[in-house]
Amino acid sequence: MKGQVMASFNAIEAITQTGPFPVNLKFLIEGEEEIGSPNLEAFIRSHLDLLSSDLALNPDTGMLGEDLPTITYALRGLAYFELRVYGPELDLHSGLYGGVVHNPAQAICELIAGMHDENGRVTLPGFYDRVTPLVPEERAELARLPTDEEFYKQQTGAPALWGEPDYTPGERVGARPTLEINGILSGFTGEGGKTVLPAWAMAKISCRLVPEQDPEEVYVQMQAYLKSHAPRTIRYELKRIAKGSPASISDCNSPEVRAMEHAMETVWGKRPMFRREGGSVPVVVKFKELLGIESVNCGFSLPSDRLHAPNERLHLPSWRRGIDTLIHFFFNLGG
Amino acid sequence: MKGQVMASFNAIEAITQTGPFPVNLKFLIEGEEEIGSPNLEAFIRSHLDLLSSDLALNPDTGMLGEDLPTITYALRGLAYFELRVYGPELDLHSGLYGGVVHNPAQAICELIAGMHDENGRVTLPGFYDRVTPLVPEERAELARLPTDEEFYKQQTGAPALWGEPDYTPGERVGARPTLEINGILSGFTGEGGKTVLPAWAMAKISCRLVPEQDPEEVYVQMQAYLKSHAPRTIRYELKRIAKGSPASISDCNSPEVRAMEHAMETVWGKRPMFRREGGSVPVVVKFKELLGIESVNCGFSLPSDRLHAPNERLHLPSWRRGIDTLIHFFFNLGG
Repeated sequence: MKGQVMASFNAIEAITQTGPFPVNLKFLIEGEEEIGSPNLEAFIRSHLDLLSSDLALNPDTGMLGEDLPTITYALRGLAYFELRVYGPELDLHSGLYGGVVHNPAQAICELIAGMHDENGRVTLPGFYDRVTPLVPEERAELARLPTDEEFYKQQTGAPALWGEPDYTPGERVGARPTLEINGILSGFTGEGGKTVLPAWAMAKISCRLVPEQDPEEVYVQMQAYLKSHAPRTIRYELKRIAKGSPASISDCNSPEVRAMEHAMETVWGKRPMFRREGGSVPVVVKFKELLGIESVNCGFSLPSDRLHAPNERLHLPSWRRGIDTLIHFFFNLGG
Repeated sequence: MKGQVMASFNAIEAITQTGPFPVNLKFLIEGEEEIGSPNLEAFIRSHLDLLSSDLALNPDTGMLGEDLPTITYALRGLAYFELRVYGPELDLHSGLYGGVVHNPAQAICELIAGMHDENGRVTLPGFYDRVTPLVPEERAELARLPTDEEFYKQQTGAPALWGEPDYTPGERVGARPTLEINGILSGFTGEGGKTVLPAWAMAKISCRLVPEQDPEEVYVQMQAYLKSHAPRTIRYELKRIAKGSPASISDCNSPEVRAMEHAMETVWGKRPMFRREGGSVPVVVKFKELLGIESVNCGFSLPSDRLHAPNERLHLPSWRRGIDTLIHFFFNLGG
């Protein structure tokens, strides 16, 4: 992201050398995004006038490839839970009690296994009720993405892809909600064997949300699922790990998105990709909620830039095209 | 167990003070039982003549209560596995890949959940084929045991009992085979949340076996289950943690068991309980296999003796009755 902000500065410098600036700009730069931006919301709330704008330009997304300029018009939200299942009061000898006590490790597996049906759909009651269906026009647009089965197999090394068969991989990752087991722990996990019947089991479970799902409602749905599926042979506890954040989506036909689309077309000589991103960028939701403004999400990093990994890089030719793009974007917007 | 061996010595001392000893005795005392008796089998194999006997008296079981002398005529065997499920090559971002990759933590839960049916029966193919059915006479004998639902609820603190509804708790723990999850681990298990889609998941799974199940066959059954249930979206690896041991059972009508039964009746003034124990005492199987002899399993410890726990104790009145019992047992056997 650092490079993207630099690109903006470079674009401004280039413009200001040629004449009057076509739009007013306010920069908001924060350095806490990687630790969950604990102070950002309070800052926005206490500087509403200072930050009041028509639009936010958010560079915290990337391109799909060097020759694939990309506008990310939707981001998924998040709801995160910790589930604990309790059985006997203490760890037991599996020989002396195996067969009369419901093993909490087994019970949590049974609960988790029931959270998806055989088609990979999440079974929490009402989970899909508010999910905005994909219209044919959007599916056609998403079908342009190079993120097919082969792409994801190469990216992940998984032996085969998985998920809702009625949706393409690109749709499943961006436009469909999911439920993931982020971690699970129970009993003896060291070398060798120990014949223990564990007293408890724990799982970290999170849901990626799409418009119009509400993290608060998903919490209630998870509670309802557990209430109707948890057997009376165990006790359980469901905790929210974070408040959760809703998904965000922009109107691809807004003048602001069009301004970016045309800027990219001018620089790359081709229409950009329109992509729904599977991750979450909570500030986009915060801007909408607190400042009432949309974001155009558009950065110039590449999948090969090793984000967060050793030897993270910035691809200079893409970066320079990004500078050109932003120059055109500001003029398109002002014009 | 130390106290039980002492009881035997005391019984011998008492007898030898009154006249000639009614049977020949050989003592085999080993101190490695708690670490799996790594040297016992080799010792037996190299001392077959020295150890050749008509019967083994094994004090490594206990009584059900102070006033409930108990003969343990069956012990369960064990088969122990480690299952590993692999998905993507590395841990992934659950936002960027959730929905296209089969989460290994979820996949292992699905596999584990399928290992029992809704009645708590193990679903490994052929798992019950060799299981000796309980005859009405034995069920009537086991029905005398005070190990009812309330007993196990108090012992474990579990909110409710679980298991095969067609069998009593005492039958389920002793006379029915079980499959337990001894441990499970995957992904992020620390404080708070991390939106990871884990690369692998691991579970420790063990089966308690009853006569005539074969640990080798159960391994093959587990492989068959995994082969038919594991989806092509993951890879898996099944490892045996130990060679496994079969169950053991004694004929309750043998002269040796009768000799113990009558000895207990003489001392306690009541018929002893006949119990199948859920745990495994591998030396009983080894004696049968290598020396061709049965064991009478009978010790005088109590459930309240805090076995393996701080302040482990020996209840002296029971210990003295045990000494009396062994005196009568040796005379019954010799008579």
